[in-house]
Parts: sequence; structure tokens; C-alpha cells
Amino acid sequence: MAVGKNPFPEMAEISGVRLGTACAGIKQQQRDDLLIMELAASSSCAAVFTRNAFCAAPVIVARENLDKSPRWILVNSGNANAGTGQQGLLNAHATCTAIAKLTCGLPGQVLPFSTGVIGEPLPVEKITAALPAAVAALSLQNWAQAAKAIMTTDTFPKGATRSFAIAGKPVSVTGISKGAGMIQPNMATMLAFVATDAEVSQPLLQHCLQQAVEQSFNRITVDGDTSTNDACVLVASGASGTPEITRDAESYPEFVNALQAVCNELAEKIVRDGEGATKLMRILVEQARDRDEALRVAKTIAHSPLVKTAFFAGDPNWGRILAAVGRAGVENMQLNDIKIYLDDVCIVSNGGRSDTYTEQAGQRVMKREEITVRVALARGATTEQVLTCDLSYDYVRINAEYRT
Amino acid sequence: MAVGKNPFPEMAEISGVRLGTACAGIKQQQRDDLLIMELAASSSCAAVFTRNAFCAAPVIVARENLDKSPRWILVNSGNANAGTGQQGLLNAHATCTAIAKLTCGLPGQVLPFSTGVIGEPLPVEKITAALPAAVAALSLQNWAQAAKAIMTTDTFPKGATRSFAIAGKPVSVTGISKGAGMIQPNMATMLAFVATDAEVSQPLLQHCLQQAVEQSFNRITVDGDTSTNDACVLVASGASGTPEITRDAESYPEFVNALQAVCNELAEKIVRDGEGATKLMRILVEQARDRDEALRVAKTIAHSPLVKTAFFAGDPNWGRILAAVGRAGVENMQLNDIKIYLDDVCIVSNGGRSDTYTEQAGQRVMKREEITVRVALARGATTEQVLTCDLSYDYVRINAEYRT
Repeated sequence: MAVGKNPFPEMAEISGVRLGTACAGIKQQQRDDLLIMELAASSSCAAVFTRNAFCAAPVIVARENLDKSPRWILVNSGNANAGTGQQGLLNAHATCTAIAKLTCGLPGQVLPFSTGVIGEPLPVEKITAALPAAVAALSLQNWAQAAKAIMTTDTFPKGATRSFAIAGKPVSVTGISKGAGMIQPNMATMLAFVATDAEVSQPLLQHCLQQAVEQSFNRITVDGDTSTNDACVLVASGASGTPEITRDAESYPEFVNALQAVCNELAEKIVRDGEGATKLMRILVEQARDRDEALRVAKTIAHSPLVKTAFFAGDPNWGRILAAVGRAGVENMQLNDIKIYLDDVCIVSNGGRSDTYTEQAGQRVMKREEITVRVALARGATTEQVLTCDLSYDYVRINAEYRT
Repeated sequence: MAVGKNPFPEMAEISGVRLGTACAGIKQQQRDDLLIMELAASSSCAAVFTRNAFCAAPVIVARENLDKSPRWILVNSGNANAGTGQQGLLNAHATCTAIAKLTCGLPGQVLPFSTGVIGEPLPVEKITAALPAAVAALSLQNWAQAAKAIMTTDTFPKGATRSFAIAGKPVSVTGISKGAGMIQPNMATMLAFVATDAEVSQPLLQHCLQQAVEQSFNRITVDGDTSTNDACVLVASGASGTPEITRDAESYPEFVNALQAVCNELAEKIVRDGEGATKLMRILVEQARDRDEALRVAKTIAHSPLVKTAFFAGDPNWGRILAAVGRAGVENMQLNDIKIYLDDVCIVSNGGRSDTYTEQAGQRVMKREEITVRVALARGATTEQVLTCDLSYDYVRINAEYRT
């Protein structure tokens, strides 16, 4: 039920970062649901977290531990450990302690993450029982297994990788993500773990991550809901042995580009796997006065259930797009100046249906699996893009059946 | 597919207001789709309109004509005359002119309204051809026919009526509404026409209408979309012969109460008929610091597709409610202080699932057709309520099939 074919890419290994998975049997017995990532001691680590006021227990712990030189990332799927009160915090700490015991490390050096059902107690015993197997499995090669272990309602594992050279030596950025519903621009039930073997100081790494996330994960939406558990972590192991990437380094823009490309691909894959998605919609707002109004218009379209159901039906219902633009809350918008396109077909101009528009042309575009909705506001020079998907019967089915 | 049984009530007639309907065959041939309301010369008339920046042509004309002593209200269903550019305005004016010719009135004394598909040219000839039949049918008794003629995706006609006495003589407030989708607090594809035979000056009538709408139609949401065509009109014919209702009159609070009751009932019926609705959800937010944060929390819950699909499934998924409260954007909310109830069952307290909660108790509530979600924020003394419905397969079906 995903948009397009989404084969798992050949992933560049990241020296200094090993991955191991195991089956803890939290929600299902059939596949691995536990991931450990081991980070070299030389690593720096950056992260961004959900802006939901009620963030989950593991998010609270991971945020605390971020500046304690993390050596381990622990992820379980099937249980979010959110809305679990004081016991939830104790449980998150307990899993960190279990890793510390196994690895002779410190509990504070573990970043825990959970994704799945909200409000159920975290089955700590199942997790600790499976940890030795995950540790035993640690390997540089396990990115595909890792991408599978963190899935919940995802229908395919999501990975992306880019390589470039510093001083003639190869360096890579490799990442995985999960997420299919509860997705909205402010970080949603979305986890992403990205690593590079380049050497980057923590403050610069945090800066790069925030920039990359703003243009990728914060530009996607499936249903406008922000999860309690979102997180995106970026690790720089420094194990490549190449010169440190500083802000003035020649390698800096290359690193930024590679990171952005990986984040973009991971984010787009989340939308492609949007719950029940049959179409990928790129909402491109041009000629806006500023970023704020461009994003406001793009997100209003992207969140409109009426627009999304029309796309599911393959119906070029430009009236619904126009109505969404109109209610975006932008002051003094002139309907007569606005142009709206479906891919290359102009559907709205001069305040109504474009003179050149034909229903056949509209239908031709709507048959495609990937469609760009382009809105030109004729107010300025700012462009912003938001990715979303359509709203189908299956979205309702998946979310009506998820817990019961 | 509506929530509850919704028989059309016995409507009190409003002397000074006659209604006539006819079939113009705009979108269907089977039922009347044209309504004329004739208002006595003594009438004052108040109205509120959509806040969508791209309001439809008839809304522009009706807004202009509101202070020209309106004598006629014209409503067609099946075509919204929105996104129709300059021709749309000409068409709206043409229908006003046609009524003026038939009735020897002035085109400026007609308030036109349209609801239905956006972006199709208004079939002016079909409308003008059907106008004589509608005028010939004018009668005090036609409220039920009127309520049917303005329906689009509605599954039942919506009416409400209240009576009280002024100086021992009966006075009534009677109204009809339509709307099922594209509904959100800022007036949505929603039309409502309310009339009273009391005498009320235009400024006071406008004040009363705005107050009543704020607490009724602006407190409902089906899918968060605001239509280009919304309007609510309140007519006071003064034909009852009772003393004028002024702000200081004893009759004023009675009138306000009757008007509020009619608007509340008409608004609630729109939610009951929400596209694909199987459940009516009252989102009650208590102990908020102010109105703004109470409404923000209530609307965030009411707009969450995840919460709405859970209710469709009869799943007491309090985690999704908690997540929605958390992302409502209220500063410094303390998860531990918040209590959430489904009807009388406490589901969240102390930051997680309530100690007293049992799945059986939750399931028992979720089987009901009408459910109150009550959120106590423990921050202040303000309460606000928003009405919404669940999100079902049929919402997707109705909106995917509406135009194609």
C-alpha cells in the first residue's frame, strides 16, 4: 500500500557504529523488535526531539543523556512507553541500566527510544531478556535489520545513504527511519537514526542536524498529529580518520549536502509509506511574501481531509484546493492573482478555473502516483515545499484497527 | 448514517416570513433545490459570513445587500458559485435581478446563497426558470420543504424552533440549517436561516446573532475545512405585533435564550449528520486558564484524525487523546495534573492511565453513540465545549465520490 517501489538501498557502513537486533516479543513474535546501536568512544551525538508537551518517558531520558557522551542507542518497537507516568520513567531507566550491566558502561550513556502503542506499561523483562542476543549480533552490516526492527505500521524498511570524499578518503552518511502515521511537520511518530564516520564537533553536529531536519522531517505530514515519541539522532563517529569537518572546512558543504540528501530521502519514504497512502503529493507554494505564509498555505492544503480524499479518488477537485488556500489565514490575498497547477497543468487563474484547463488534462495528471500541487501567490519570492499523501479507506482501517 | 434519530420538528410559523421551494434541476431532478424566503417590509436582517479569504460570489453580493433592507433570500443547492471569477458575480447578480423582476422589487434587496460544488458555472437559466414556481409556492408553512431544498450531502433536513411570550403574546424563533462536511469552527459549508416574528432593531439583532453563532456554529467541526460559502442569517420580521425587544427589555434574555437554543440545536444537527458520522463527540475542556487555551485544546482533540478513527472503532485509545492535548501548544502544561474522562470514566490521571480505569469501563462508554471527552487542565476556571464526530470509512467514500 506504499507509493512507488521502495527497495532498501545498499547502505554504506559507518565505521565506529555497530548495530544489533533481536526479538523481544513485545507486540509480535515474528520479527525483531529491538535495536541496539553501539557508538565508538570518539563519537559526538546530536538529536532533536518531539515538541509535544507530553513527551514520552524515553524521550525525557534520552534528552537528559545526550550530553553524557552517549555510547549506546536502544530502540524498541511495539510499545511507546508514553503516558505511563512515573513508572514509565523508571522503566526507561531500567532498560538503560540493563545495557550498562551487559556492556560494563554507564546507564547515563544510553539513549533509549520507544515507538508503538501509547499507555501500556513497557515490558522491561522482555526487553532485558532479549538484550544479550542484540549485543551478540552487533555488526557494521546490520542497517537493513535495524530499519526493520524499528518499524510499527510501516510497510517497508526505510534507509538512505550518501558518500563523499574528504582529502581523498571516503566518508559516508547513512541513516534509517520509521514512521507512517501521526506524522506532521513538528516531528511526529517518527524515529530516525543517522550516522557518519566523519569527525564533527557536537555543537556543529547539532547545528547541521537542526538545519537538515527543518528542511526534511519538518516538511512532511500524513495526518497532522504530532507524536509523543519523535526523535532524530545524528552520530558522528569520527572513525574515518579524515580531517575534522569544521564550519570553514572545504568538506563542510559536502557534508551538509549529504546529510540533507539522506534526511530528505528518509523523510520522503515516510510519506510514501503514509498510512493507507496511494499517492505522494508535493505541495509547492511559490511567490510568497515570506517563509511563514508559504508554509501556512502549504500545510493548510496538506492537512485538508477534503483535498486528500479528492486525491485518493483521482479527482482534480481544484475548488477544494482553492478553499484551503483561502482559509490559510494569509492577510489580503488576492484571489485573482493566484495560479494553481497540478504538475504542469494550470487549473486556477483569474479567480476561477483556468481558461486553458480541460477535465481531461486534469484527469491525466491525477492518474499519476506522484503529483505536485503548485500554488503561485504573486506576493513575493519565497518558496516552500511540504510533502504529504492522500487520505484513503485504508488510513481509517489502519487507525481504527491498530489497537483493538 | 447520522448519529441518533433526527425527526424534523413541528416548526412554529413566523408571521412575516414566507417560504417557497422548487426544483431547478441543478444537480438532481428528484427534489427541490431552490428556496425563496420572502421577508415582510418591517423586517430587520442580520448575518455572519465565512471567514475564508476566497468567499463565493453570492457571499460577496449578500454582504453588500445586507444593509439595503433585504426582502428576499434566495438559496440554491447543487452549485456553490465559488471560484467562478467575474462571471460568478454576474451570475449571482442575475439571479437577484430575476427575483426583482418577478416581485417588482429591487435586485439589491435580495440576499443570494449557494451551496454545492465549487468551480462550476452557476446555471442561471435553470434557476430563473424555476423561480416562478418557488414564488407561487410561498407559504408560512414551508419550513420543512425549505430545510430539504438547501441540503447537499446532508442525510436529513435540519430544523429547530422555540417559542416564548412577550406581554402575554407568543413569539417564536424558527430556523433551518444545512451542512455535513467542510465544517469547522469558523463557519463552514454551512448555511442557516433563522427567523423570528419579534421586533428587534438591526444592530441589536446583529449583536445577538454574533453571540449565538459564536457559541453554536463556531463550536462545531467535522473535518476542519472552512467553506467559501458559509452564512447564517437571522431575520426579525416584527410581525408578531409585540413590543420591540431592546437591550433593557424583560424579553431580551428570553429572546437570547431562544435564539441560542435554536442555533445550538441546528449546529448539533450538523455534527450529527457529519459526513460518515457514527458517533457524536462532545469535547469539554475544563479548568483552563482562559478561553483561548480551552478552545485550542478542544479543537486539537476534535481535529485529530487519530482520535476520530479510534472513536469510529469504539477504541478507548486515551493515548491519542493525551497526545492531542500535548500538542495543542499550551505553555507549561503539567501532564501529572491533567485528568481525562470518557463520560464518567476517568481514563487519565497522574500522568498515565488512571488507577481506577478498566478496559471494560472504557469499552462500555465507547459503545455509546454520544460520548463526552472531558479534559480537566487544573490551570484555571474556564470551560469550553466543541462538538465533533468520528472519522469513518464513509467520510472517505462520500468525499472521494462527491464530484466524480
